[in-house]
Amino acid sequence: MEKSTVQLAVVLASGGLDSCVTLAIAKKESREIALLHASYGQRTEARERRAVEDIASFYRISHRLFVTLNFLKEIGGSSLTNENLPLEEALLASSPTSQIPSTYVPFRNSLFLSVAVSWAEALGAGKIYIGASAVDAPGYPDCRRQYFEAFNRLIEVGTKPETEIEIVTPLIGLSKAEIIKKGVQLGAPLHLTWSCYQNQDLACGRCSSCRLRLKAFNEAGIKDPVPYAKEVKIS
Amino acid sequence: MEKSTVQLAVVLASGGLDSCVTLAIAKKESREIALLHASYGQRTEARERRAVEDIASFYRISHRLFVTLNFLKEIGGSSLTNENLPLEEALLASSPTSQIPSTYVPFRNSLFLSVAVSWAEALGAGKIYIGASAVDAPGYPDCRRQYFEAFNRLIEVGTKPETEIEIVTPLIGLSKAEIIKKGVQLGAPLHLTWSCYQNQDLACGRCSSCRLRLKAFNEAGIKDPVPYAKEVKIS
Repeated sequence: MEKSTVQLAVVLASGGLDSCVTLAIAKKESREIALLHASYGQRTEARERRAVEDIASFYRISHRLFVTLNFLKEIGGSSLTNENLPLEEALLASSPTSQIPSTYVPFRNSLFLSVAVSWAEALGAGKIYIGASAVDAPGYPDCRRQYFEAFNRLIEVGTKPETEIEIVTPLIGLSKAEIIKKGVQLGAPLHLTWSCYQNQDLACGRCSSCRLRLKAFNEAGIKDPVPYAKEVKIS
Repeated sequence: MEKSTVQLAVVLASGGLDSCVTLAIAKKESREIALLHASYGQRTEARERRAVEDIASFYRISHRLFVTLNFLKEIGGSSLTNENLPLEEALLASSPTSQIPSTYVPFRNSLFLSVAVSWAEALGAGKIYIGASAVDAPGYPDCRRQYFEAFNRLIEVGTKPETEIEIVTPLIGLSKAEIIKKGVQLGAPLHLTWSCYQNQDLACGRCSSCRLRLKAFNEAGIKDPVPYAKEVKIS
C-alpha cells in the first residue's frame, strides 16, 4: 500500500457541491469508495438522496449505505427539520445571541461521523472523507479544524486497538468558490448536485443555500450547471 | 442553581442494571430527568424497551425518547445484531487477536452519546449520564475514562459556544457487585431490569450477560430479584 493511497475510504455524501468535490478528491486518493448518506427528516430529503444516487452512479460506486436518523426531527432545534419555523431567506440569518444559523442541527456532524466510523470499522476502511469547510460556515461549531481534531482523538481511544481510521477534510481551508474551481478541475459532476433548502424540483435560487451557491459560482467565474426556478440576480 | 444540582439531565437507559443504578444517582443530583433509549436491531430489543418503560414509570419520568438506529444491524460487526453469528456462551468470549468481545458493536457509545448531546442541546440539559464501567468491561474501548474525556472535549468544541454539556459516568470505577450494592442502597428498581442477551421472556442464565450479572449478585451477597428460565449454578 502506497503512503498516499488508502485501500478503502468511506465518503460522506449529502448530494451537495462540497461532498461531490470531496468524493472526486477521495476517488483519486483511494482504491475503493464506500458512500454514506444520512437523512434526518430534512425538508429536501428525497431530492438529496436522488442527487447522491446520481453522483454514485456517475462514479460507478456500488457500495452505498443510506441511513435514516429520523429522531433528529423529533429532537428539533433546527429550521431544517422543523417545518413550522420559517426558513430564513437571508444569506446568513442567525440567532441574535450566538451567530449560529437557524439551520444548525445540534451535533449533526458527530452523528454522521459516528455512523461513518461504525461502518468504517466494520468494513476495515482507513479513512473517512467529509466535505466540511470552515471558511463558508463560520457559524457551525462542528465544521472547524479543532472539532475534527477532537473527533480523530475520539476515534483513537474509542475503537479497537488495531483499528486505524482518520477523518479527512480536504476542503476545510477552501472557500465555496475555490471548492467549485477544484471540482471543475477534477471533472466532478457538479451538474448532478443539489443545494436548495426549499424545493424538490427546480432550485429556488432564494434560500440561504441557493444564494451561497450562486454567489460562489459567480466568484469562481463559472456558470452553475443546475437550472433554477426563476432568474436570480447576484448582488 | 446549587453547584451539585443540575436542572435537567439526560440519562441513557438500556434497561439493564448499570443504567438503572445510574438513573437512581442522576435522580438525586438533578431536578428533572429526560430518559433516552436507543435500540439498534439487537436481539432483545423489545424486552429492553419494556424494561426501560417500567423503570421510567417507577420513577414517574414522562420525558422519554426512544430512537432506533437500525442501520447498525446493516453495518454488522457484532454478534449482538447478527443472528447468524452464534452468541458466545462463555463469560468473556473474545476474538483471539484483540481481546474484544464478539458482542462489541463498533463505536456504539459514540452513536448513543451523539444522540444524547443532540437532544441535550435542543432541551438545554446540562449533563448526560451514562452507566459505563471500565472495571467489568475491559475489552470495550468506548467504556474507558479516556474515551469519555475525549467525548467531553468533542462536546466543548462541537456545540454552540453558550452550550455547556458534560458526560457523567458515576459507575466508571465500580465493579458490577459494587454497582448492585449501590443500587440496593439507593432503592433502585433492580427487579425491573433486563440483562439477558438470549431470551425475551425469562432470562436464560447462560449467556455472557446473565453470567456476569449472576456472578456479581453472588459477589455482592444479594439475591437477584429477576427470575431465570432454569436453576443456574454460580461457579
